[in-house]
Amino acid sequence: LEAHILAHNNEHAASNQRYLDSRNVRAFNLMSSPGSGKTALLEKTLGELLPEIGASVIVGDQRTDLDAERLRRFGGAVSQIETGEMCHLDAARVGAYLPKVIDVATRVLFIENVGNLICPAAFNLGEHLKVALLSVTEGEDKPLKYPAMFSLVDLVIITKIDLLPHLEFDLGKCRKHLIQLAPRAQIIALSSKSGEGFDSWLGFVRKQLL
Amino acid sequence: LEAHILAHNNEHAASNQRYLDSRNVRAFNLMSSPGSGKTALLEKTLGELLPEIGASVIVGDQRTDLDAERLRRFGGAVSQIETGEMCHLDAARVGAYLPKVIDVATRVLFIENVGNLICPAAFNLGEHLKVALLSVTEGEDKPLKYPAMFSLVDLVIITKIDLLPHLEFDLGKCRKHLIQLAPRAQIIALSSKSGEGFDSWLGFVRKQLL
Repeated sequence: LEAHILAHNNEHAASNQRYLDSRNVRAFNLMSSPGSGKTALLEKTLGELLPEIGASVIVGDQRTDLDAERLRRFGGAVSQIETGEMCHLDAARVGAYLPKVIDVATRVLFIENVGNLICPAAFNLGEHLKVALLSVTEGEDKPLKYPAMFSLVDLVIITKIDLLPHLEFDLGKCRKHLIQLAPRAQIIALSSKSGEGFDSWLGFVRKQLL
Repeated sequence: LEAHILAHNNEHAASNQRYLDSRNVRAFNLMSSPGSGKTALLEKTLGELLPEIGASVIVGDQRTDLDAERLRRFGGAVSQIETGEMCHLDAARVGAYLPKVIDVATRVLFIENVGNLICPAAFNLGEHLKVALLSVTEGEDKPLKYPAMFSLVDLVIITKIDLLPHLEFDLGKCRKHLIQLAPRAQIIALSSKSGEGFDSWLGFVRKQLL
């Protein structure tokens, strides 16, 4: 059954990607634990990109549209999916929202997945790039504990580095774990609060749009 | 199918609870996001309780036995379950480990669930109390976003309060959200690092053993 669900999801994901490609939109699937800073990253990202670059967001949460409210004030199109019992976004639901958030000016779509380091890894959404966020408050052992997610992604963003002075987080060890699991993934460390490292992420996004 | 899986799990959970009750052991199911401080809480808890009170641990992670290694040095019985693809512990797996960690001196069993705020909520393990941890680094909106978990638990432990001076976390608002969702749940705020508030948690545990 599980294989059937995943195969069905992959069909929808392929259809989503065709839709995005035909409109020249690059899509990022942002995944992490709850509270790793996905919405804070997107707030600052939309603030920097819009209106120069057309950026839209689909955000998934088990309940509430708090994140969509936070993101709408930047002017881009934002849709919230409340997943209810489901622990991840799936391609069919995301596909239903694509026409609502994408117009002729849209160049980039950020999909903020449900806060969960396990289940979203199995469900392609039609994105071009998978991104995992890892907050320094979570500890440098998390890539080893959740290898399915971290071995899959194109980019790992280590967030909240402004808190490093107050933690025992070992950034070097974390990088080592990530390089073992995902030798080809890029790693960017940043703080959405202080802005440190944020230009690397914006540069990464802009490069994908060329 | 899902209903069938949950019913099957509930049967195993009831069997686990009979096993625990017959041996006069109280079991706590600790659930939270990855990196909320479950293992740090248990390190300090075992350090305080052992050897006076017989305390054992079953810890679940998608991969690695890093947490079990951290917990074994306190002298209690600790078993690690690597859940692999699974995003939560289930009662059948936990049941298989009960005889390994429980002996005549055991009075309390801590089950550290897989780091995930969604899926573990649906799977009873035979515990007497469900406990959710929420780190102040995750933001005070998390109870609203993950209501299935937070409305279910007997106790919410707000962790890492030593970091409050460096965050914009609103403890009063967080308590308000929790009281809305779970009016009967107790709330304890603590830091496993500084020790602030930790006695309330130890008092809660001891009271359950009376």
